[in-house]
Amino acid sequence: MATNGERRYFEQLDATDPLREIRALFDLPDDRVFLNGNSLGPPPRETWNRLQEGMLRWRDDMNAAWWDHQWLQLPTVIGDRIGALIGAAPGQVVVGDSTSVNLFKLLCGALYAQSAGGRSVVLTDRDNFPSDLYIADGVARYVHPAATVRRVPAGEIIDHLGDDVAVVLLSHVDYRTGHLLPMRRINERAHAAGALVLWDLAHSAGVVPIDVDDAGTDLAVGCGYKFLNGGPGAPGYMYVAERLLPDFEQPVTGWLGHTRPFDFTADYQPDPGIARLTTGCPPLLSLLALDEGVSLTARADLAAVRAKSVALSREFIALAETRLARFGIEVTGPVDGAQRGSHVSLRYESAERLAEGLAATGFHLELRPPELLRFGLAPLHVRYVDLFDCVAAMEKLLADADHGGLPR
Amino acid sequence: MATNGERRYFEQLDATDPLREIRALFDLPDDRVFLNGNSLGPPPRETWNRLQEGMLRWRDDMNAAWWDHQWLQLPTVIGDRIGALIGAAPGQVVVGDSTSVNLFKLLCGALYAQSAGGRSVVLTDRDNFPSDLYIADGVARYVHPAATVRRVPAGEIIDHLGDDVAVVLLSHVDYRTGHLLPMRRINERAHAAGALVLWDLAHSAGVVPIDVDDAGTDLAVGCGYKFLNGGPGAPGYMYVAERLLPDFEQPVTGWLGHTRPFDFTADYQPDPGIARLTTGCPPLLSLLALDEGVSLTARADLAAVRAKSVALSREFIALAETRLARFGIEVTGPVDGAQRGSHVSLRYESAERLAEGLAATGFHLELRPPELLRFGLAPLHVRYVDLFDCVAAMEKLLADADHGGLPR
Repeated sequence: MATNGERRYFEQLDATDPLREIRALFDLPDDRVFLNGNSLGPPPRETWNRLQEGMLRWRDDMNAAWWDHQWLQLPTVIGDRIGALIGAAPGQVVVGDSTSVNLFKLLCGALYAQSAGGRSVVLTDRDNFPSDLYIADGVARYVHPAATVRRVPAGEIIDHLGDDVAVVLLSHVDYRTGHLLPMRRINERAHAAGALVLWDLAHSAGVVPIDVDDAGTDLAVGCGYKFLNGGPGAPGYMYVAERLLPDFEQPVTGWLGHTRPFDFTADYQPDPGIARLTTGCPPLLSLLALDEGVSLTARADLAAVRAKSVALSREFIALAETRLARFGIEVTGPVDGAQRGSHVSLRYESAERLAEGLAATGFHLELRPPELLRFGLAPLHVRYVDLFDCVAAMEKLLADADHGGLPR
Repeated sequence: MATNGERRYFEQLDATDPLREIRALFDLPDDRVFLNGNSLGPPPRETWNRLQEGMLRWRDDMNAAWWDHQWLQLPTVIGDRIGALIGAAPGQVVVGDSTSVNLFKLLCGALYAQSAGGRSVVLTDRDNFPSDLYIADGVARYVHPAATVRRVPAGEIIDHLGDDVAVVLLSHVDYRTGHLLPMRRINERAHAAGALVLWDLAHSAGVVPIDVDDAGTDLAVGCGYKFLNGGPGAPGYMYVAERLLPDFEQPVTGWLGHTRPFDFTADYQPDPGIARLTTGCPPLLSLLALDEGVSLTARADLAAVRAKSVALSREFIALAETRLARFGIEVTGPVDGAQRGSHVSLRYESAERLAEGLAATGFHLELRPPELLRFGLAPLHVRYVDLFDCVAAMEKLLADADHGGLPR
């Protein structure tokens, strides 16, 4: 029986990985390993064909392609596909704009929905993804002058659910530590206190099983280009629970949120469904790529994805603790796989130099301040041997560094 | 000498068209004529290569491509390229989101800029593009409760420049009639009355010479997928005059508008320049296509483009008046080419059936309520003979219709 000190042990894990055949559906270079698929998932091979098809339809049908090929429906069609990945019944998810624009719309809407009750506090994690904090501050500053943003540690959110809290804004998985928050419990506690909850699923959708409907989630946004493999800058998406939808208002009332945009009527009449969240024309080529990324992601069994994700984290953390701790490298975030998403961050004081050294040897990951090396363990394309090889490369770089070898 | 009753006359115009070689840069089908390039410009042949390059960079460099290939700079790089087409010095145009989202940002910002003076009226054309009206109403309803939207006929805008007007919101070219408004004169009158002007250049950029800086324009938005040939749903753009930029605020304060987004600081600090208008990650594949469309558009001499546009309109109107008036078809909008953009709308009571008949014979155009057939005369790919052939096809359909032949 091989041990985790041997490459053979990881090869065996790969050989019995139930997801091993999915990897071939991605177009991956042979000579490097990407451990930042949590920032930008790699290209599905089929994306190329989807773009080609899109280009031909653009040429052959021009503007009529929006109707002839149901391009106009894509935001809700892809929305429903994403919905299936996050446990949302059809009609509650729509794709479009960026995650930050989407967050702006939903946060504004949540505050409108709560304004009758006089609630005006946006309660959030002080370590939330900065753009989420910026958007919340912008909404409070510019759109809802009565609103204030209260930032507290994630672990203290429930303690701050006062009767002035309108909406709790949280990332499901912390972008730095990988910490996974208990969605259902926070929803229940927030609802008991009269607050809505708006989740950012950027680092969980497609890799952590989520059941937004069953967990009683109110609102969510997410990102298309991470674990959904939708391509660089792929449009994001919004979820609004069906029970909130009929009265849900958002301020960016562009024509494609109109119930009959091509009647060109003088006054805005919001679509009765989730399309009321949309604004302008979606970037079609990027939308086709997103569709393919979501479709590929949906081919994998999410329970198997989660199982592999937890196993990858466990193996990676064990390797880091066994082989890298002596260089002053520290694992951050929860050790328990059930409490983390699908990335692991290691703290190291010369993180930038180490990342450069790793990139030069073919291992690509990301830096996040302060001093964090973030390893994305995307189960659809990361192999167990990749972890072994990467840690071996780190060990060599760090050992050399003790002799002045780490790149400066 | 051929007359405009003969196809040869139009062939001669094409043979001496100084733009005739540009057409070959587009990928156009042989068997049909697109007269809706004002809604969606056709694909440049080179766009395909740009997408391929983008896909390879995505595969080979993953997230690092944003830095290694200056993808992060593309919104301002393409912005400056569009700036050159509309007379904006560098640093005042940025690409991203949809035209409607962009309009939301700039209209909010214009109202913040004017709020100190107690001005709160958005003055607009009652026949403005519906999405522009919807956005203005949304801003007044949700973001600036003190604001009101005043809709008046375009020709009466100047008469309504009272001291309560904060911002004048106008489309440079009317999406139905093609009527081109006098930008400089309206800017001057609005400024004299203490108002800002926000122009929507969707139907003029790339086809009408515009000099936003010289005309004293304050703010503008525009569309990437019409005469800029950026592809279906291509991102739009925003112009903010340099003199307004340092204090210009917009409410959708996402991370890419931050001066140092990748420092991940806790508080939003807007970029000092035009990038403060951006919010989230731009859809890269669509952005590459836009870049190519803009680059192709910029290869043509804009004075020659305008001259051909005016000539196409003149010839088309003459043909319509000579050969179609007897069927009850009426030319709308100004006859004087100097007062129109690059499309001509014909009014006909059975517009939809006629459009269907034309599509069946290979001529594609668009319907706009009420009863309008809109012909986009994009000078980079529409030929003079296309107009002759299209009018001949209409004449035949209408003559047949008199005998019951028009499709129902």
